Amino acid sequence: MYSYSNTLRVRYAETDQMGYVYYGNYAQYYEVARVECLRSMGLSYKMFEDMGIMMPVISLNSKYLKPAKYDDLLTITTSIKELPGVRIHFFYDIYNAEGILLNQGETTLVCINMQTNRPCGSPQILLDNLKSFFDPS
Amino acid sequence: MYSYSNTLRVRYAETDQMGYVYYGNYAQYYEVARVECLRSMGLSYKMFEDMGIMMPVISLNSKYLKPAKYDDLLTITTSIKELPGVRIHFFYDIYNAEGILLNQGETTLVCINMQTNRPCGSPQILLDNLKSFFDPS
Amino acid sequence: MYSYSNTLRVRYAETDQMGYVYYGNYAQYYEVARVECLRSMGLSYKMFEDMGIMMPVISLNSKYLKPAKYDDLLTITTSIKELPGVRIHFFYDIYNAEGILLNQGETTLVCINMQTNRPCGSPQILLDNLKSFFDPS
Amino acid sequence: MYSYSNTLRVRYAETDQMGYVYYGNYAQYYEVARVECLRSMGLSYKMFEDMGIMMPVISLNSKYLKPAKYDDLLTITTSIKELPGVRIHFFYDIYNAEGILLNQGETTLVCINMQTNRPCGSPQILLDNLKSFFDPS
Repeated sequence: MYSYSNTLRVRYAETDQMGYVYYGNYAQYYEVARVECLRSMGLSYKMFEDMGIMMPVISLNSKYLKPAKYDDLLTITTSIKELPGVRIHFFYDIYNAEGILLNQGETTLVCINMQTNRPCGSPQILLDNLKSFFDPS
Repeated sequence: MYSYSNTLRVRYAETDQMGYVYYGNYAQYYEVARVECLRSMGLSYKMFEDMGIMMPVISLNSKYLKPAKYDDLLTITTSIKELPGVRIHFFYDIYNAEGILLNQGETTLVCINMQTNRPCGSPQILLDNLKSFFDPS
Repeated sequence: MYSYSNTLRVRYAETDQMGYVYYGNYAQYYEVARVECLRSMGLSYKMFEDMGIMMPVISLNSKYLKPAKYDDLLTITTSIKELPGVRIHFFYDIYNAEGILLNQGETTLVCINMQTNRPCGSPQILLDNLKSFFDPS
Repeated sequence: MYSYSNTLRVRYAETDQMGYVYYGNYAQYYEVARVECLRSMGLSYKMFEDMGIMMPVISLNSKYLKPAKYDDLLTITTSIKELPGVRIHFFYDIYNAEGILLNQGETTLVCINMQTNRPCGSPQILLDNLKSFFDPS
């Protein structure tokens, strides 16, 4: 398993009149988190697109346990629990500054060859980076 | 079961550089759809908040089957499949103008008494409106 | 001068914890309004991009007179006050259902040839459509 | 004059199908920047709301000089050029990692007493903090 945590400050724009972060904005938090997770390995999603592979999200699940609020400094822990293939699964846990778990999410991305517009395997450089975290040898 | 369909035009703001609607924006489409579903019964979410009941989302699931694109005129069919209690489940199917199913979603909302900040039953006026669609008598 | 009015319902996502529409969301309202203004002439922004002309915004001015609120049914009047050249100016007035002016905005777009990535004249079809509203003859 | 610079990474969500940051998203960047500008003085906007003063934006001007792009690490310099009264003016310059100026903005906020819902003077603690940067003595 590979895990990485980043922090993120809640913007006023992201709140709604309930005084909570709008439920639709967590998907952006997940995006930031998985991109920083990749960056922690020296990779970037931009690099993948420049290599001709895009990774649209094909499924999203979120559980809203407690509301995140304006100006909260959130910590998001992103986990990759299995070596990716055509699909990559990311898991997210979002905590506030007191360490309280606010939200849990899960996204599945699929690798698409941008030239053929068809599914393809994960970028080799991603697999190479992840292997040591999964390989028993 | 109660179902209602509304249409919605994809905004440029909602696309991303993949040329697709950003995956996080479907949650807004679901919000618009369930609010229009309520309005089709003569109700409004605003009315519920004015009555002292707010309904935060506690879970969200989305499946992205095919991308929605800029300026697409989407049709969203919202369904309530069971009489709500403390929780209300909404199901969404999003189609493009050609009738192709692009996205399926599901949200669970919980009724909160805004004075006590505790869960409460669904507004009676919502139950009264829905009953005829579920009651066998 | 050419003017067109469209209506738009405020989404919950667009409010912030002040209970107002977040100031950054009016730019989306302007986008929707100018696109509907074009559509009223039988044109669409999508058509322009398909023709190889994109129109990024190069300046934006907004005055927030009174707050728009959740579920408000806004009317946006978009005006083109002069025949466009390389640049197109749009003016916006946003009213609530009581006819109260809430917001005034102004955007300047520049026409870019997507192949050369350089400024170019407005699409001829836009000029042809607008001419009768400006031509004294 | 008081100036402060913060950095901010462009999210995928913030791009549009032109491959640029959507013009409406700069308002969020300005919000983040002015909040970090306040935080650099040991203040926070949240603190002001907790004190009963909210500060809605009453005017916004933006000039889009060059496009910001996905994953760009932007530097935003926020300036307060005069001591605030009922109104507070913030000026913003946004640079990319190469130091190229991409965007210039300006917002005016008005201080509102949340109990009376009427304009009021700037929070004393803000004036106290700013005074040394403006006072000739």
